Amino acid sequence: MERKRIYLVGLGPGGREQMTQQAYAALADADVLCGYTGYVDLVRGWFPEKETYTTPMTQELARCRWALETAREGKSVAMLCSGDAGVYGMAGPLLQLTEGGEEVEITVVPGVTAALSGAAMLGAPLMHDFCVISLSDLLTPWDQIAKRLVCAAEGDSVIVLYNPGSKRRRGHLRRACEILLERKHPETVCGWVRNVGREGSEVRILSLQALKETEVDMFTTVFIGSSTTQRIGRWMVTPRGYENK
Amino acid sequence: MERKRIYLVGLGPGGREQMTQQAYAALADADVLCGYTGYVDLVRGWFPEKETYTTPMTQELARCRWALETAREGKSVAMLCSGDAGVYGMAGPLLQLTEGGEEVEITVVPGVTAALSGAAMLGAPLMHDFCVISLSDLLTPWDQIAKRLVCAAEGDSVIVLYNPGSKRRRGHLRRACEILLERKHPETVCGWVRNVGREGSEVRILSLQALKETEVDMFTTVFIGSSTTQRIGRWMVTPRGYENK
Ligand SMILES: C[S@@+](CC[C@H](N)C(=O)[O-])C[C@H]1O[C@@H](n2cnc3c(N)ncnc32)[C@H](O)[C@@H]1O
Ligand SMILES: C[S@@+](CC[C@H](N)C(=O)[O-])C[C@H]1O[C@@H](n2cnc3c(N)ncnc32)[C@H](O)[C@@H]1O
Repeated sequence: MERKRIYLVGLGPGGREQMTQQAYAALADADVLCGYTGYVDLVRGWFPEKETYTTPMTQELARCRWALETAREGKSVAMLCSGDAGVYGMAGPLLQLTEGGEEVEITVVPGVTAALSGAAMLGAPLMHDFCVISLSDLLTPWDQIAKRLVCAAEGDSVIVLYNPGSKRRRGHLRRACEILLERKHPETVCGWVRNVGREGSEVRILSLQALKETEVDMFTTVFIGSSTTQRIGRWMVTPRGYENK
Repeated sequence: MERKRIYLVGLGPGGREQMTQQAYAALADADVLCGYTGYVDLVRGWFPEKETYTTPMTQELARCRWALETAREGKSVAMLCSGDAGVYGMAGPLLQLTEGGEEVEITVVPGVTAALSGAAMLGAPLMHDFCVISLSDLLTPWDQIAKRLVCAAEGDSVIVLYNPGSKRRRGHLRRACEILLERKHPETVCGWVRNVGREGSEVRILSLQALKETEVDMFTTVFIGSSTTQRIGRWMVTPRGYENK
């Protein structure tokens, strides 16, 4: 039987235990595991017999084209993404490439995105409305990123920053904090998490002012509180208002 | 041995297979399962021997107090939330009640929130920056909700609406759409999902204008596209920009 099928699989932050059963089942069902080398290495050990196809981090489109061709030939392919497949992941480019064709059956398998796994380590920063913004200007002009930061600050939402820095993108977090400091109190409660669910995971709570001076890498996710976000012991918490009931 | 412990567990949208292994392990480890009746019923069958404690939907604070007292007496308690425990869930109020005390060990176990499980059904609406906003004005003044809608529209982010309606809150989605229509094109690609991962799940893609005329209930999550969000076949997709590379 032909199995023209692609699973877009969100693995969660890292370890097996933060993956859903549906994600694991999709990997088990697939003929080929495909993705960025680092993610394929994460799961290869569980399925030593399976065919794999890996490409470097930046080859997203090539990877999607390969997956689509391979599925059209009658195989089932699992495309691996960290976190959720639809949050700065592979689900978008893959679905765009299909141009709406239904020849290949596509299933998006959601996963615990870094905003959620990171929030859990910090406590409960996302209890009230929040915005997710990527600081990567590889695919988005910086002006648009800056505009979204301004809007998020004006709405007084909690802000989650993906891709806050890398070797190539030094200074992006500093520039973002400068924009936010024009509109938010320097003592606004912020936090960052690094390598959630992986070796060497770290978590920190600090002020917006201190965040501005922080160097972060591409394995970090940053949380900027709203005006009501508090530090409670070792936790970062945004109240929802139950206490006023 | 005393086990003064609380797990705040995000169950994901519904079924066992969209739960993480960590969430399942927390339920298995707990002495008592505690939560809104509907969620406890969802998992009770897997652990027929376990003690349970249920309260109606609105008794969040009472439930948190009970959990904290029970844990202080030496039991381990799993507090059940749908989706993620930290997104309009129980993690915030519980951590606030601890006042930073460390007598009870607390673990927040993240889960697949409705924005992610719903996005996966729609395709890839959240591939670019997005805002999550609750339309419930039980704990938040409507003015603040309206302001956040305006800011999200001005930043041209994708918008995810939780609690878009209920028997008590008719007309909220219509009012939200009216605010957005002042700033966004009436043909903006939108979608909604209902009962994700549960019996009777539904998914729909429609224009912002058509969304305004839609009646939704409390089991629905609504997605409002940015200016670049497209309908591709049966999918709702927000491009991230790979196609311009
Ligand atoms: C291209 S995005 C991919 C996001 C992923 N699809 C998700 O849903 O989490 C990469 C960014 O996600 C965040 N991230 C991914 N995994 C992480 C982890 N284990 N710990 C902390 N941040 C992480 C970081 O901000 C990183 O720069
Ligand atoms: C009080 S909030 C709880 C959110 C939950 N903690 C989460 O992370 O998904 C309730 C709202 O979540 C959304 N929701 C929760 N479960 C859902 C499901 N299975 N399908 C669609 N929407 C859901 C709906 O918008 C609903 O009104």
